[in-house]
Amino acid sequence: MHRLLILSRRAREYHDLVAAANLPDLDITSTSDASAAAARCLECDLALGEPSLLCQVLSAMPALRWAQSTWAGVEPLLDPALRRDYLLTNARGVFGGLMSEYVFAYILAHERRLLDKYRAQIEGRWDATPPGSLRGKTLGLLGVGTIGAALARTAKHFQMHVKGYSRCSEGCGDVDAYFHGDSLREFAADLDYLVGVMPATSRTRRIVDAVFLRALPPHAVFINPGRGGVVDEAALADALQSNRLAAAVLDVFQQEPLPADHVFWRTPNVLITSHTAALSFPEDIAPIFIDNYRRLRRGEPLRYQVDFDQEY
Amino acid sequence: MHRLLILSRRAREYHDLVAAANLPDLDITSTSDASAAAARCLECDLALGEPSLLCQVLSAMPALRWAQSTWAGVEPLLDPALRRDYLLTNARGVFGGLMSEYVFAYILAHERRLLDKYRAQIEGRWDATPPGSLRGKTLGLLGVGTIGAALARTAKHFQMHVKGYSRCSEGCGDVDAYFHGDSLREFAADLDYLVGVMPATSRTRRIVDAVFLRALPPHAVFINPGRGGVVDEAALADALQSNRLAAAVLDVFQQEPLPADHVFWRTPNVLITSHTAALSFPEDIAPIFIDNYRRLRRGEPLRYQVDFDQEY
Repeated sequence: MHRLLILSRRAREYHDLVAAANLPDLDITSTSDASAAAARCLECDLALGEPSLLCQVLSAMPALRWAQSTWAGVEPLLDPALRRDYLLTNARGVFGGLMSEYVFAYILAHERRLLDKYRAQIEGRWDATPPGSLRGKTLGLLGVGTIGAALARTAKHFQMHVKGYSRCSEGCGDVDAYFHGDSLREFAADLDYLVGVMPATSRTRRIVDAVFLRALPPHAVFINPGRGGVVDEAALADALQSNRLAAAVLDVFQQEPLPADHVFWRTPNVLITSHTAALSFPEDIAPIFIDNYRRLRRGEPLRYQVDFDQEY
Repeated sequence: MHRLLILSRRAREYHDLVAAANLPDLDITSTSDASAAAARCLECDLALGEPSLLCQVLSAMPALRWAQSTWAGVEPLLDPALRRDYLLTNARGVFGGLMSEYVFAYILAHERRLLDKYRAQIEGRWDATPPGSLRGKTLGLLGVGTIGAALARTAKHFQMHVKGYSRCSEGCGDVDAYFHGDSLREFAADLDYLVGVMPATSRTRRIVDAVFLRALPPHAVFINPGRGGVVDEAALADALQSNRLAAAVLDVFQQEPLPADHVFWRTPNVLITSHTAALSFPEDIAPIFIDNYRRLRRGEPLRYQVDFDQEY
């Protein structure tokens, strides 16, 4: 018999979805409260939940063997002070569609001058300024995992050119040109749009810094639905305020919610989307746990294993 | 020797593009002024230009044999008082990409609550309201020509369900269900988005009327980048003001520019885009003329012929 702790703000939904799968030899305990969980998880060998909650109960789970994160990002579980003697899997392959809708909503809005036309309308002004088009524009993907691949596919649908910067992978056929290592400046040189979809690791920390930002053309737009830690926020604010960068669309930040006195609130060419780019829906995530549970039972490798050393 | 009159607001660009093709036996006269054209087109057998300008010189062109419109819509040339003893071709096949960018800019902006988040940001408010998604939503195409087919393809990319209403065609494989004739209400019944991409003809005039609008679900959004004449504007304003329709994104109107006292300027759930959805770019349109000229020389049928009786 396996014992599963579900620890999530949406514990009830996860409980119903997992229970409905009638998985063999599985006993489920679920709660959205970490303190309550800590008192009940002594014998649990499996966990499913948000990394920000799971990190609080790791020490109370001596039997833990496998934890499935409901998020893509697992930073709270990568703290070097925490144990790493269990299998950690994260959520992948389910955010590409939502991320694509987010990124292209803002790219299209920029090309179509959606906010300019909205402001003209408020003034009762017929604004026939011609829009731009995505066709022939260049999209740069900072990170080419499953999300980057989904973005590349949508970019190709709209006849864009796609450049990808990745650690080493070159597996996505929709990326026209790959860059690695210290070729960040060549990667940045002719981008119309830069999208940050890298995991937060010690190698990607503040990779979008003053030097990198200076390599971008001044008409470029930076969209960051990935991780706040990859950005040097002071350097980004400086580039935006001095118009060395046309605009930024930011979903994630070093501190969230973004503090009331943060300079981004007062930077006119910044759009803030409040960490809503790609939410984790239980109906998307539960099937990943269910599939992995079946793999565990069959003695097969689990999907989406996190490498603690690579930090993703 | 053929004699071509180019009569267009962008006459110089069209002249350069056509001249660069070195077409045999072609003499070109170009102007952006209809009065000047009328004095010089007596011997012209060919014309290329905007229907709104060409209609002013038809009677001064006794030798006219073929006219190529730079627009998709040719209503100014369909006036029953005007001659129809020449071949009229219009511009098709080049607007699909731009129309797709326009329509999906606004569909994505609606799902992602782009304007709500923008207004929250102006108030310094962290707005974590979850967005919607296109996946599984239903798009209804009022008209399935080359533009409708391009919209259907993009809708499928975003995993939408597509319904099409057409006079009789059923040729687009990206449309999941076709409707014709008096099945407008079944077509409208479960739409999340309705897009008007029909030509303006006597059959489509005010097809979006009070009865049709009542058949739409109240959460539906109407996007009209097609022709203003297909809409009963008073009925649409009434539906929007009484929230029987969630929103409308309108590019075209019965009268343009939209008069300053028009009710749409004061209707909060209307977005006005000032006839910019899909502009005619000479670099897209000139190749259509050039290809048709070569067909004419070879005695082949021209592409994109307008049927004066069908009005498109």
